Amino acid sequence: MNQFALLHMTDSAYCFPVSEHEIVIRLRTARGDIEKAWIIFESKYVIGESQKKLPMEKVLSGELYDYYSVKLDLEDTRLAYVFYLWDGREYYYYSEDGATLTYDFTKGYYNFFQYPYINAADIMKKEDWLTQASFYQIFIDRFCIGDENKDKSYINLKWGDVPTPKSFAGGDLKGIISKLDYISNLGCDALYLTPIFKSPSNHKYDIVDYFEIDPNFGDNADLQELVKELHKRGMKIVLDAVFNHVSELNEKFQDVVKKGRESQYFDWFVVKGDFPKKDPLNYEVFAGCTYMPKWNTSNSDVQDYLISIATYYIKEFDIDGWRLDVSDEISHDFWRKFRKEVKKAKETAVIIGENWHDANNYLRGDQYDSIMNYAFTKAALDYFAYDKFDAEKMADKLNDILARNTDTVNDMMLNLLDSHDTDRFFSEVHEDRDKLKAALALLYLFPGAPSIFYGTECYTVGGYDPDCRRCMDFGKEKENTLTDFIRQLADIRKKCNFSFDGTRIYSSDDNKLLCMERHGENGDVTLLINESDSVGKDKDIQVEPGSYRLYVGGGEVL
Amino acid sequence: MNQFALLHMTDSAYCFPVSEHEIVIRLRTARGDIEKAWIIFESKYVIGESQKKLPMEKVLSGELYDYYSVKLDLEDTRLAYVFYLWDGREYYYYSEDGATLTYDFTKGYYNFFQYPYINAADIMKKEDWLTQASFYQIFIDRFCIGDENKDKSYINLKWGDVPTPKSFAGGDLKGIISKLDYISNLGCDALYLTPIFKSPSNHKYDIVDYFEIDPNFGDNADLQELVKELHKRGMKIVLDAVFNHVSELNEKFQDVVKKGRESQYFDWFVVKGDFPKKDPLNYEVFAGCTYMPKWNTSNSDVQDYLISIATYYIKEFDIDGWRLDVSDEISHDFWRKFRKEVKKAKETAVIIGENWHDANNYLRGDQYDSIMNYAFTKAALDYFAYDKFDAEKMADKLNDILARNTDTVNDMMLNLLDSHDTDRFFSEVHEDRDKLKAALALLYLFPGAPSIFYGTECYTVGGYDPDCRRCMDFGKEKENTLTDFIRQLADIRKKCNFSFDGTRIYSSDDNKLLCMERHGENGDVTLLINESDSVGKDKDIQVEPGSYRLYVGGGEVL
Repeated sequence: MNQFALLHMTDSAYCFPVSEHEIVIRLRTARGDIEKAWIIFESKYVIGESQKKLPMEKVLSGELYDYYSVKLDLEDTRLAYVFYLWDGREYYYYSEDGATLTYDFTKGYYNFFQYPYINAADIMKKEDWLTQASFYQIFIDRFCIGDENKDKSYINLKWGDVPTPKSFAGGDLKGIISKLDYISNLGCDALYLTPIFKSPSNHKYDIVDYFEIDPNFGDNADLQELVKELHKRGMKIVLDAVFNHVSELNEKFQDVVKKGRESQYFDWFVVKGDFPKKDPLNYEVFAGCTYMPKWNTSNSDVQDYLISIATYYIKEFDIDGWRLDVSDEISHDFWRKFRKEVKKAKETAVIIGENWHDANNYLRGDQYDSIMNYAFTKAALDYFAYDKFDAEKMADKLNDILARNTDTVNDMMLNLLDSHDTDRFFSEVHEDRDKLKAALALLYLFPGAPSIFYGTECYTVGGYDPDCRRCMDFGKEKENTLTDFIRQLADIRKKCNFSFDGTRIYSSDDNKLLCMERHGENGDVTLLINESDSVGKDKDIQVEPGSYRLYVGGGEVL
Repeated sequence: MNQFALLHMTDSAYCFPVSEHEIVIRLRTARGDIEKAWIIFESKYVIGESQKKLPMEKVLSGELYDYYSVKLDLEDTRLAYVFYLWDGREYYYYSEDGATLTYDFTKGYYNFFQYPYINAADIMKKEDWLTQASFYQIFIDRFCIGDENKDKSYINLKWGDVPTPKSFAGGDLKGIISKLDYISNLGCDALYLTPIFKSPSNHKYDIVDYFEIDPNFGDNADLQELVKELHKRGMKIVLDAVFNHVSELNEKFQDVVKKGRESQYFDWFVVKGDFPKKDPLNYEVFAGCTYMPKWNTSNSDVQDYLISIATYYIKEFDIDGWRLDVSDEISHDFWRKFRKEVKKAKETAVIIGENWHDANNYLRGDQYDSIMNYAFTKAALDYFAYDKFDAEKMADKLNDILARNTDTVNDMMLNLLDSHDTDRFFSEVHEDRDKLKAALALLYLFPGAPSIFYGTECYTVGGYDPDCRRCMDFGKEKENTLTDFIRQLADIRKKCNFSFDGTRIYSSDDNKLLCMERHGENGDVTLLINESDSVGKDKDIQVEPGSYRLYVGGGEVL
């Protein structure tokens, strides 16, 4: 047995309660190394005398490792356990002391694994609407002009021209409201909007006043109307919380600029000197941008202020959650407080971090519910666009990504092919429509919630920022678009009601097909994708190169 | 290279800030597998264009794995990094995507490792006094009777007789006060007392009233006097917080017994039914003991109540910290709140959990500072008492234990050979005085703070509870005791002022000696222990079987 590969960590993605009496236990082994795995367990006060034993199931297989899993239903949740492994030659026990050929349960209290007790407060709740949602992400300035009566003097981009970093095209909240039926017709039932608060830029990630909606986008009444119209349609809205940094024009930072150390807001920022100075830069900023000073989120006054913004928009406008900009540069301490107050204001409000990397430390139930799943994005690029992955490598990678987090979190991940911060996926695949369709099928059926960037449905192209933020072309919508295709994918998701349990992702024996099976409450799905250059086959189903096949409940669709 | 063994986790014991500009990065590899390891790093916004590179040092070697470490001093703390490894044949990059022969830094933002930003609120502070402390643990009823005027009718054990579970011998707070010079003369400068609050038992882990000192032990004035006398001597005191459960005689539980669901305290416990019943048991208890109902620590009223106890004794009596009974069965959520309030009440107050197992999830800076290090206890038993470990296995095990936690935590661990919850170590080693001395030398020089159980210094014997809780024999103190020996060990610790950095634990080439080197601010120490049955040798120093040699600053002592 390859002992080096064994991994189990209690109270982690390898061991997590899913209810007050159920807990999921995972074990990592070297891939293909083990023939059978069991868990031996009991209440920790009893395991010295008697033990129970259950087989574990291999649920994920990554590049190097297999991941076994079992869900235990416990009467006494003071769980003690060790693993019992058969590699075809020997039986091993695996405990905190590693793999051994014998194990003394009477001294187990020193080195068994344990989950000492399931406390209700430590169980991460799965937010059902997020699990079932299909998101539509809108970069507001480029989506739709709805308010024809507003002062348009700020608009400097002719709708449809290629944007620059300083372009203003005129999109607004009224424009979004006017397109809700359009969005709903795509099967999307949740909006994620880039920031809407007062800011001098087109992207509005440099906020001047969090308590004012940017006049170019609309006003409080528009936001109220938008939320009302969304909720009427059974749709949700998630706003963008830019709490890492602020515009230098913000009055609190300006107070520090004027009064320096004498300002009551001096400690709200991180300034090394008596006054903030740009040359040489002596205060913390976002990404080297001197016009975006960083909040000191370790300061409890700052924490309270930012949280008051989050709860204000929940209480006053009934929004359904926050996407957190640059959330990984903000303290855990802040997000813990943030979660408590946000969930207190609205239990079903969701919290979605912008962490591009493994974020399992933020996804343990005390901070976020979810992140923007850029690891999925990268895998999709490596497979569909960059030719770096064959089917086997892609299956491995998707399994490894799923192994990072708990089942609960996997069902809430916000999966995406692209966003306002990347090249358009359609441009990455050189405008290959079949590739985009196959990738969308994967996106919609992967565990978690899919999020598409506005315009994906009408084959919008674009390179990196600002090119990915082109104006929406509703004219193209009448052409041969992906509207019906996307709605059908969304309908399948909604109808089947998948959960992570029962997900299998693998490559066909001929290594030509990426295969995904999902298990839903009301139906099972099989997706087969062929990105190789010849016909591939899995269980008697053939798939042509550059195409995919999708089966729901055994019957082929789409 | 053995890729299966590679492990790095950001924001964990493998990656932790130690100041606002310094961070320690660890990497796990298969033991002996790598010839050289480097870290390649830069600010995450810059690493696409240029990178810095530093060698890493092998600091720990366990049974299967080596652990490399490097401390980075950063100008911009938005740290991105990958590892660069040479196994004698190939150079590998190791990132979130695993080990690869090439690495594209321009796309690194998808898969480099990162610590996105050092926020002050997320840095775990090392509490210096705990790092430098030598603890003396007292089971109060058996230590010393100081109050000759109290009502002694409850005493049913003649001092010196072997105790039963129901014995009361009469020890009290005044008794402890009378022995402070004795304890101080042992080099101990911190007390850990088992519970002192009102309770019907001799151990007092079933508390009836947290706001009253048990009358058999004394009163508020006695506790005040004890703390005053301790602080006068530069000593500290840590009390035992029994917050997992309570006595069934507690008035809040009794209210539930009487009123059932109508009681305002019904939700303070976990009762499955309208009234708590013992047969069949329908409420949560500690360890199957029906007389110790478990608090519902997920309930915020319970949280506030228990925390008010913790802060009351800090504010009113100026105690220096809490040891947390059965802390692993209490919610993380509770301990997070607890820490905030305790540290607010007294910044230097320490929080020491009773977790017998790997507790790294409680030791990340948001919950405890430290735990009772029973993993060390078990290793000491396996090496000195049970003959399960030779020198090599013991060195491996101690290295693996140190790899569980950050350097910061390792310096604050409460190390112990035994306690009120184990057999006496001296009995475990069959009353072998040389073994006890060698084990004490290891205990005192191991990273963290040593804690000795009262009576260790005069070779007290005893099996499992209640036998380990025999009456202190101050008469024996005049005989050939360990008093001077222990004081000298404590003095060496104090004088040298060790920190985890520079600790090396290994076995001699002949596998006869367990060798430990510590690096202190004011001196280095080498300890060589021979538990084999023949002479062992390390670097020209010979050690007789069953003995040890100790060098301070190159000169032999003790």
